Amino acid sequence: MTVATRDRILDSTAELLRRYGYTGTGLKQIVAEANAPFGSIYHFFPGGKEQLGVETIHRSGRMYQELVEEVFDAAPDVVTGVSDCFAGAAATLEVTDYADACPIATVALEVASVSEPLRQATAEVFESWIQSSASRFGRAGIAPAQARELAIAMLNGLEGAFVFSRALRSTEPLHVAGAQAAAAVRAALDPQAPAATPRSRRRARSAP
Amino acid sequence: MTVATRDRILDSTAELLRRYGYTGTGLKQIVAEANAPFGSIYHFFPGGKEQLGVETIHRSGRMYQELVEEVFDAAPDVVTGVSDCFAGAAATLEVTDYADACPIATVALEVASVSEPLRQATAEVFESWIQSSASRFGRAGIAPAQARELAIAMLNGLEGAFVFSRALRSTEPLHVAGAQAAAAVRAALDPQAPAATPRSRRRARSAP
Repeated sequence: MTVATRDRILDSTAELLRRYGYTGTGLKQIVAEANAPFGSIYHFFPGGKEQLGVETIHRSGRMYQELVEEVFDAAPDVVTGVSDCFAGAAATLEVTDYADACPIATVALEVASVSEPLRQATAEVFESWIQSSASRFGRAGIAPAQARELAIAMLNGLEGAFVFSRALRSTEPLHVAGAQAAAAVRAALDPQAPAATPRSRRRARSAP
Repeated sequence: MTVATRDRILDSTAELLRRYGYTGTGLKQIVAEANAPFGSIYHFFPGGKEQLGVETIHRSGRMYQELVEEVFDAAPDVVTGVSDCFAGAAATLEVTDYADACPIATVALEVASVSEPLRQATAEVFESWIQSSASRFGRAGIAPAQARELAIAMLNGLEGAFVFSRALRSTEPLHVAGAQAAAAVRAALDPQAPAATPRSRRRARSAP
């Protein structure tokens, strides 16, 4: 059993957790998807499903953060970066028939009151996401405390919109969240602008 | 087997779904919590767990909406109502050791790609929540399309903050979401005010 097998197990687990959650994902399903022998799970993950869950949460969290960093790095400015993240999330959701949203949110809600190691893994990932966005907003010139609030507000919007978008099979909630997050960052960079909401901003722009 | 038994089954199911999700809730656990005989589930819900899930989602969704309506009705104005909803959600979360958040979000994420009847039930509840808040914002004087956007943004913030607050065991995300939602509604009622973010608003207020 090779490292490639271990990676395939982690890849399959990540995909299954994202779509079906922790309780809804069985070890048999994981090895079937990974095309790996059943014994390989306990070979690589002696702690069984919980250890596999913790490692997958950390790995998926890192990969998702890298993806978001790349989108931000490719954008001309931080406000566009925020918009692009939400637009990308909406496009992915549509392409995957509303299946692929946040890699760890379903698990986070399931395990919060059930497994302390798994809850802690989700908390560490979320905190690193908050800090990553907050320091990016900070580098754009926003004061630390406000940068953290903006990061939390943006991520709240993203996670909440994933819940609604998947249930409603509509990207409307993601578009609303993206417009709001971009407007909030724009307003923080220019506090005198009448930012308000996306709609009133559009109105303000088209006024003579 | 009486109507009281049926109600106890629905109550237990609601509580278990909220905390452990759909897959993590077993029929044996439900009847044990409800202090009901096992056969009573199929007596009252011939469609078994899925039917029980659909009815519980609708029932919990209605009850949660009524709770929110009561908070809004008790508030002197719609902006205070928004703040009070988030403050109440944060207080409940703390009191229940970060267990009792949205009654149907965990289920919504679990079932979105798995069960069409359950997904549809969560979609119907979410759409009714959006319309309820949107019409309240509309009655406060906000135009329909913007009222819908504000309702979606507020609910995005609430659901996302529940994910983060439960995982992080902190009410910070809920407080950030509540301040943002209240500021957005305030700004929509008075588009000329420099609403921006809660922090810049505080700064603006304290300026000489």
